[in-house]
Amino acid sequence: METLRVALGSRSYPIHVGADIIDNAALYRPHLGAGGVAIVTNPVVAPLYLARLKRALAPDAVEILIEDGENAKRWESVDLVCEALLAARCGRDATIVALGGGVVGDLAGFAAAVYQRGVPFIQVPTTLLAQVDSSVGGKTAINHPCGKNMIGAFHQPRAVVADIATLDTLPVRELRAGLAEVIKHAAALDAGFFEWLEANVERLLARDRLALTHAVRRCCELKAGVVGADERESGVRAILNFGHTFGHAIEAAMGYGEWLHGEAVAAGMVMASELSARAGLLAASDCARVRSLIARAGLPVAGPAVAAERIIELMQVDKKAARGRARFVLLEAIGSARVRADLPESDVRAALDAGGVGRPSAAAAQ
Amino acid sequence: METLRVALGSRSYPIHVGADIIDNAALYRPHLGAGGVAIVTNPVVAPLYLARLKRALAPDAVEILIEDGENAKRWESVDLVCEALLAARCGRDATIVALGGGVVGDLAGFAAAVYQRGVPFIQVPTTLLAQVDSSVGGKTAINHPCGKNMIGAFHQPRAVVADIATLDTLPVRELRAGLAEVIKHAAALDAGFFEWLEANVERLLARDRLALTHAVRRCCELKAGVVGADERESGVRAILNFGHTFGHAIEAAMGYGEWLHGEAVAAGMVMASELSARAGLLAASDCARVRSLIARAGLPVAGPAVAAERIIELMQVDKKAARGRARFVLLEAIGSARVRADLPESDVRAALDAGGVGRPSAAAAQ
Repeated sequence: METLRVALGSRSYPIHVGADIIDNAALYRPHLGAGGVAIVTNPVVAPLYLARLKRALAPDAVEILIEDGENAKRWESVDLVCEALLAARCGRDATIVALGGGVVGDLAGFAAAVYQRGVPFIQVPTTLLAQVDSSVGGKTAINHPCGKNMIGAFHQPRAVVADIATLDTLPVRELRAGLAEVIKHAAALDAGFFEWLEANVERLLARDRLALTHAVRRCCELKAGVVGADERESGVRAILNFGHTFGHAIEAAMGYGEWLHGEAVAAGMVMASELSARAGLLAASDCARVRSLIARAGLPVAGPAVAAERIIELMQVDKKAARGRARFVLLEAIGSARVRADLPESDVRAALDAGGVGRPSAAAAQ
Repeated sequence: METLRVALGSRSYPIHVGADIIDNAALYRPHLGAGGVAIVTNPVVAPLYLARLKRALAPDAVEILIEDGENAKRWESVDLVCEALLAARCGRDATIVALGGGVVGDLAGFAAAVYQRGVPFIQVPTTLLAQVDSSVGGKTAINHPCGKNMIGAFHQPRAVVADIATLDTLPVRELRAGLAEVIKHAAALDAGFFEWLEANVERLLARDRLALTHAVRRCCELKAGVVGADERESGVRAILNFGHTFGHAIEAAMGYGEWLHGEAVAAGMVMASELSARAGLLAASDCARVRSLIARAGLPVAGPAVAAERIIELMQVDKKAARGRARFVLLEAIGSARVRADLPESDVRAALDAGGVGRPSAAAAQ
């Protein structure tokens, strides 16, 4: 097991990465308050890991099940969690534990942020996407019909316990979707890691534990550095949104859950790379490397068949937009990203056009 | 005009108190972002002050009206505010301005806390209760059927503009409800101010502007000191909840809006004083002074005719409760409060009994 740290002063916290650590009680003990524990999870993850986690946490932990899938990220689920916490008489000294993927973490984290004006929570991510990205950094949210993650809070967890062994049970489509965020970290922040991915993507798809541990640890390291420097995304943190301006719009246009977040981000990264090349920032050869790695991961390199108008409209209400102007994270090179809001709409349309037809490949939709 | 400051490091902010300052553009200008302004108010306050405020802020400010009354403090209203912000393409650089009483401030503040994970907001309180209490300190919330303010966030405003002249249009019942929070500050924190209130409560009821300005300024000063020392209520801030353990339970038992918050807190302060006396902390003569001042303010000194069981049950799920045990703010003397969670239920029942029958006086219910 390896332990990293997100440095945020009094809100600093550890990220534990390793195999078969989910029921290591010592990892949780320092972070549990006096007021009991509630575990938020879903009916897919519960039969796999809930009993083991509960034994490690507290035999009388409250169990709260939300529905599986992106559709759970809505107010009704937050209300359901709060209702269960109230029924169990959980006070401000209770701890919420999120057991599951990005949806469970985002939702349970948001419930923890607003229940009684904020209670502590712990992330136990069981998908690759959650382990490498969404469980770290304190972003919590639910969706709005007009845009993904439009309602939320910054609420840092007290600890993250990423058990690589839980990836054994992950459907291959979700493994690939998680790889999209791995590729994002590398493309935006670390050329050396991108090269490592080019050499090891097949090992990751084969769930080689050493390779997965390396990838999860490196992503968490990169993300912890960015979050420590800019917790609330007033600056550098925005580059972690590489692929997300297009990606969020694709998700919203298709209806949440149709495309997995990682699939939409994958197509979004291809479009953002195209846009980077058109803006004269990125060499065509590097643009091709991004596309190629995404394709090798079994992820879509083209967006869905929706009207460009709709995507452009959705991007203008994106959280990253400033004064109704869409902002994009562009690559200057593999491993080096920057934010731009001054791009001509013709370039944006051309990038959409370059990736604007087709559906996720049959492989990705398994 | 007088200006105080809540000292919270990078989140410090000014409180401006004075007559006819609501349309002083210079008070708002330093706090407005680049991304537009949205004013949240209700149909009662809008005809009185919205046009003036809008001129001072921005002629193209978005207007968002929520319903009048405590019932507005529910998720549907937050959703309505977010929907309107999205429709107006408001981004993270927009500023939300809360124009109205405690309900508008709590709701607009919570919407500001969660819209796109947090946008700046400004409080323009137009009721005595909001000016002396709820607009200062960053507590925002909505209600849950099981308890008041159960869902919320700490989100500090960028500025508070308390225009004493707006109290001219306040219904007398609400003026009195505001006085309950004024009395709370004095009873819990400042014996000298309590004496001043004993000498001046009639001037306040007559809306003497000098007296009102003094009371609002002193309450804000007291509250700013407490909030600066303990923003998230991990310690001393809890004493500002004097009267609120009983008060919140009364409100929840009656259904929100039946009793005004200040009325419930008034009866709650009488019960908490009784409890303080029974616990051997407070002299009977001081207990009588609290009761007398509350009565002179035209506020209820007895709770509604509901079963003690129901109140006790509701107090156990109060946010201040620890491990299901109700916590009370007790007086050791006028101007000196402390938190206690170890009180025998027999004393709590006796205190409820002492204030447990009757309804708000005809005067208070006008």
